[in-house]
Amino acid sequence: MSSLQKKILSMVADDLSDIEKIIYKNLDPYLDIVKQTAEHIFLSGGKRLRPLLVTLCARLCGDDKGLGKRFSAIFEYLHTATLLHDDLVDGATQRRGRDVANTIWGNSTAVLVGDFLLAKSLEIAAEAEDIEIIKVVAHITREMAEGEIFQLLKRGDKNLSLDEYMMIIKGKTGVLIEGSCRTGALIAKADRKQEKALTEYGFNMGMAFQMADDLLDYTSDTASIGKETGADLREGKLTLPVIIARKNAKESDLLFIDKIIEKREFSLKEFEKFVSLLEKYQGIEYTKKCILNHIDKAKKTLDLFGNSRPKETLMLIADYVFERKY
Amino acid sequence: MSSLQKKILSMVADDLSDIEKIIYKNLDPYLDIVKQTAEHIFLSGGKRLRPLLVTLCARLCGDDKGLGKRFSAIFEYLHTATLLHDDLVDGATQRRGRDVANTIWGNSTAVLVGDFLLAKSLEIAAEAEDIEIIKVVAHITREMAEGEIFQLLKRGDKNLSLDEYMMIIKGKTGVLIEGSCRTGALIAKADRKQEKALTEYGFNMGMAFQMADDLLDYTSDTASIGKETGADLREGKLTLPVIIARKNAKESDLLFIDKIIEKREFSLKEFEKFVSLLEKYQGIEYTKKCILNHIDKAKKTLDLFGNSRPKETLMLIADYVFERKY
Repeated sequence: MSSLQKKILSMVADDLSDIEKIIYKNLDPYLDIVKQTAEHIFLSGGKRLRPLLVTLCARLCGDDKGLGKRFSAIFEYLHTATLLHDDLVDGATQRRGRDVANTIWGNSTAVLVGDFLLAKSLEIAAEAEDIEIIKVVAHITREMAEGEIFQLLKRGDKNLSLDEYMMIIKGKTGVLIEGSCRTGALIAKADRKQEKALTEYGFNMGMAFQMADDLLDYTSDTASIGKETGADLREGKLTLPVIIARKNAKESDLLFIDKIIEKREFSLKEFEKFVSLLEKYQGIEYTKKCILNHIDKAKKTLDLFGNSRPKETLMLIADYVFERKY
Repeated sequence: MSSLQKKILSMVADDLSDIEKIIYKNLDPYLDIVKQTAEHIFLSGGKRLRPLLVTLCARLCGDDKGLGKRFSAIFEYLHTATLLHDDLVDGATQRRGRDVANTIWGNSTAVLVGDFLLAKSLEIAAEAEDIEIIKVVAHITREMAEGEIFQLLKRGDKNLSLDEYMMIIKGKTGVLIEGSCRTGALIAKADRKQEKALTEYGFNMGMAFQMADDLLDYTSDTASIGKETGADLREGKLTLPVIIARKNAKESDLLFIDKIIEKREFSLKEFEKFVSLLEKYQGIEYTKKCILNHIDKAKKTLDLFGNSRPKETLMLIADYVFERKY
């Protein structure tokens, strides 16, 4: 664990412990299988980034009653619902080293427990008695579904454009993290300027977060042993490092890159060559620059707010997104 | 078409034509595949019962601006979303003689378009700017998911109790039709008494409608040729006629009934014997009585309202549920 990560964790330890309780308490299903399936994915080691952002953004806007935290489960449930449905869509069998829900309980249960969590997320949102929050949740849910469908349609398309990639990651991660931060502001009855700033903070954090996630598929420690990494490539998902490398590559290298993309299967040696071409043609470097750019934008939106502990934490979390593992 | 059906259709022809336009207009997806998948299921010949009930209940409570109709798409989208997910859960290949969406476009698309419709339903509901309506929609969605999961768990269980069956059909159909009628009242700003009456009307209509649907599996015209009917039996779903017959059957007949339930496969001759046992042991008769009982209750709730055309239509629709095909 890096020193930055340790510092953040020490600043939010109490919040995270409360959020954990809130997530489990709010679930309250009447069927054991729902509890088991949902808890399986809750327990699979997510960082609770979304509920934490709701909590911190609300506090930054003056929430001193823990309202943000109370409603933070909305976004963990929404996130978990999409993970359940996406794992099925992707035909994934593992997530963070654990079997995914659909391989344990079947597709049917994964779909229905996902629906349950979507509904539960909405029920909690309705308790805030603010129609604006409902609009945010509804909008996020629709954009995420459309984004996933678009990604599905574009699977295996080696000509995926930069704009199309941006659209996909916006739907995949951008809108949900944007919505988490915006809802934090709404719950705290922030003024329009503050709401707008935190919406922008969230959007940029979401984009950076997803780009970092996509980059990790080519640069994380496990890359050297070729295990788990390259999953996007196997699923036919083109991400930023590949799109940029394809743009810059000379013909013979492009042929190799495209061959791997089309095959969706590769040896460790081929994967290492693929990664070295991403490096050679600035795919890795450009992606890092993009991440940094979004992080800078995110941090700048916080200029509107005076110094405070929640502001400091939000700044550090932004830095952490860039620092993640690679 | 029966004379009752003709009469109802002539009374609601304009409403149905408006509802049709509203359903297509509100959809407005940015991806063609969403449009195709959703329209495939919209076109598969549903009766638009739910949007019609919203429209009529709102009008009964004084809505003279067509507000009920405007928001009626909420419930058709919600209904369609659950059909998409349920077909996948049931492993169904056909619905009303057409291939289901998941066999044409795959499970992934069916799941994601279902999610899109859920979200869209919510977005429209939010436009009504009434948090009570959101609470109704959220509650319905959760109860439907839990009901489906419960049904899935109980599949093939020949000891399904009457209470468990009631719980399943409440989640499957009761809450959605209840919610449609209640939302009609809410949109028209009806008083609490009227809202309560229409909630009860909807609940009883929903229960009657599902029981009638379950009965049709054993009594419709196609029963004589053994095609399509018996689908519940093949999917391991015990319904009211079977539960009652099992209660009353003498041992040798019970053995035959249970053998068929357990096998989930049967010849036309076996199916005919199965149906004759449902008749012999009052399974069919008892179910008809239950339907009639719910229909009577539904109609009685309308006593609260003075005579009007929407009231007359709601009374006739109640009668129609009992008359359906068998």
